[in-house]
Amino acid sequence: MRQSSLRAHNLALVLRQVAATGRPVSRADVAAATGLTRATVSTLVDELVRGELIAEIGPAPRSRGAGRPATGLMLSGTGPAALGLEVNVDYLAACVLDLTGTVRHRITEWVDQRDRGAPAIVAALAQLAASAGVAAAEQGLEIVGVAAAVPGLVQDGTVRLAPNLGWRDVDLAALLGSALGRPVRVENEANLAALGEAAGAESFLYVSGEVGIGAGIILGGELFRGSHGWAGELGHVAVRPDGPPCHCGSRGCLEQYAGQEAILAAAGASALGTIADVVSRATAGEQRMLDALVQAGTALGVAVAGVVNLLDLGTVVLGGGYALLAPWLAGPVEREVGARVLTAGWSPVAVRASRLGTEATVVGAAGSVVRGVLDDPAGWLAARPGTDPVAVAHG
Amino acid sequence: MRQSSLRAHNLALVLRQVAATGRPVSRADVAAATGLTRATVSTLVDELVRGELIAEIGPAPRSRGAGRPATGLMLSGTGPAALGLEVNVDYLAACVLDLTGTVRHRITEWVDQRDRGAPAIVAALAQLAASAGVAAAEQGLEIVGVAAAVPGLVQDGTVRLAPNLGWRDVDLAALLGSALGRPVRVENEANLAALGEAAGAESFLYVSGEVGIGAGIILGGELFRGSHGWAGELGHVAVRPDGPPCHCGSRGCLEQYAGQEAILAAAGASALGTIADVVSRATAGEQRMLDALVQAGTALGVAVAGVVNLLDLGTVVLGGGYALLAPWLAGPVEREVGARVLTAGWSPVAVRASRLGTEATVVGAAGSVVRGVLDDPAGWLAARPGTDPVAVAHG
Repeated sequence: MRQSSLRAHNLALVLRQVAATGRPVSRADVAAATGLTRATVSTLVDELVRGELIAEIGPAPRSRGAGRPATGLMLSGTGPAALGLEVNVDYLAACVLDLTGTVRHRITEWVDQRDRGAPAIVAALAQLAASAGVAAAEQGLEIVGVAAAVPGLVQDGTVRLAPNLGWRDVDLAALLGSALGRPVRVENEANLAALGEAAGAESFLYVSGEVGIGAGIILGGELFRGSHGWAGELGHVAVRPDGPPCHCGSRGCLEQYAGQEAILAAAGASALGTIADVVSRATAGEQRMLDALVQAGTALGVAVAGVVNLLDLGTVVLGGGYALLAPWLAGPVEREVGARVLTAGWSPVAVRASRLGTEATVVGAAGSVVRGVLDDPAGWLAARPGTDPVAVAHG
Repeated sequence: MRQSSLRAHNLALVLRQVAATGRPVSRADVAAATGLTRATVSTLVDELVRGELIAEIGPAPRSRGAGRPATGLMLSGTGPAALGLEVNVDYLAACVLDLTGTVRHRITEWVDQRDRGAPAIVAALAQLAASAGVAAAEQGLEIVGVAAAVPGLVQDGTVRLAPNLGWRDVDLAALLGSALGRPVRVENEANLAALGEAAGAESFLYVSGEVGIGAGIILGGELFRGSHGWAGELGHVAVRPDGPPCHCGSRGCLEQYAGQEAILAAAGASALGTIADVVSRATAGEQRMLDALVQAGTALGVAVAGVVNLLDLGTVVLGGGYALLAPWLAGPVEREVGARVLTAGWSPVAVRASRLGTEATVVGAAGSVVRGVLDDPAGWLAARPGTDPVAVAHG
């Protein structure tokens, strides 16, 4: 027991060290950085190479000298890969990520999902997953885990509520699991997107603006989930307590001022339009759309200022559709935050667009699977079919 | 180095075990619970007893049997004690806490502090501290640390802003330190009160309602501080973005609807009254005051619902002056939370009054000192005058 947990700990330590730099490292580098002996590192590296978590670059030609030539170790770009799926109100998406975090396949199907219904959506996702599996195999990759992002409240794989899809108590993990023939982890889209955006131990508020508005709270590089995993429902924070009714049953929710449908309606456009419609009208300088974006950004800024007053976060990331609207929204958000955050004078708050843009969610979904493998390589190696972990450990 | 950090770890482990139950435990109990050998436990216990962190109850009479009679170990009720100080807009307070968390001395000086100025306040606190020191000594206690709570933004001992005291950039730690002749830790009052309220690993929002409104966010038993220690500024979350101006420079802040002065003003009473005035008018059934409390509770509920939507916390504690107003405020808060929290249907939010009531802040301040000693007994033992930690370790 102790021996195997020590091995698990050391496997993770070595893998983390190889992953840390993004450049090839030698066994000796890993030994020096981890404090493990070279012999131990070599045993563990061999195991990680056999499990296709690490690839060896080289070795250099043997002719030159006496000793064993140094080979460079990197995270494997073949073998295990992750599949991310996304249900958005305006589209479905899939992507394949290898262990290095590189997107190897990505597809978006632009279909309005509002009235499509869960069974049709699951069937469409299964098709995307199947073609992603083929694309992965053609590149020497094997899907080892699947995560799906939905714009709703998720509890143990069940979507308790996704107002903009019209879902209540849809067991998406079970539906997708049986359609794909493998376990699927289902999570809130803003949470997965925020994780996808996190690099290192920073803290920030990630705001995902689509038809619905969600947030992911990243504290020291980790997702804050709350008591039931339901943290981040920024879209239902009240901007005006007696404002327009929201489909959640409350009034004056942020979504009614800054959600995609609200922006389109305020600009006199069809509420069934997409973020692309908003962007093209704003880019064309259409005054009603520009005014609607100032209104939306102001409401968003009021809500975000409340979050910063409460959580003392130094960075706000505009993600999802908001990543595309950042040129118009960031200014009003910064203005409200500057005026309303008590500590803004001592410590200004940075407002920026998501690095991954609208891809953040589906990439974050796949990334959560990759993170799971990298955090627990021993668990992953043990679960591989046809592998005897004890034999490997003593091999 | 490794040896001494192991000793520090084990001292804390043993002390935590003794503190855990609140009942006397034997050395054998501690050994069984910690997995340390009896000999190691005895050495560590002896050290903690010499340092007056642990007291031995007994031993039982020696006549009965052969072996060493079991003595009961408890946290010491004499020796090291903590001094908590509080600056409230309506009063100053001091309290002495022993290591068991029992209040051994408590005094409140009811003087309006709004225009008193920092030097006079510091002088008055120094007097309270001196009389607390005398009261402690009379009970066999020695003050080993001091923490002071203020209703404002604190950064490294300096009060950056305390709007309701009219303070900006007051280095309270330095002023109090020189008045008391010892280091004083200065912290935000709601943070200390929330810590005082925390028992175990629970998560909750503690709302401290006085002239100002602050909050302490407790996650898994620990205070969430944010990037600069400024988390919890609930009083400046906007309830209505275009509401009345706040002295913080923003508009429509919660304080303008639910702060003590706002409640008194809405009821047609003098804004310089106290929470006691609010309670007596409400208890007498004065309709204007009852209406004012419904208004305040509704605004508070809107802001708290926003926090719960964001953080998914299951419990809201009404503290400070709000602890006394809970009979009138809890209903409206529960109503708004029930109507506005997206997940309220799956997981109701409990709203309750603080266990410690208005004492929470000053007790929490002293408690933070006690917690510091109990979390790091080795550090505390090493810092004691006239103690050679190496000699003790090998004694």
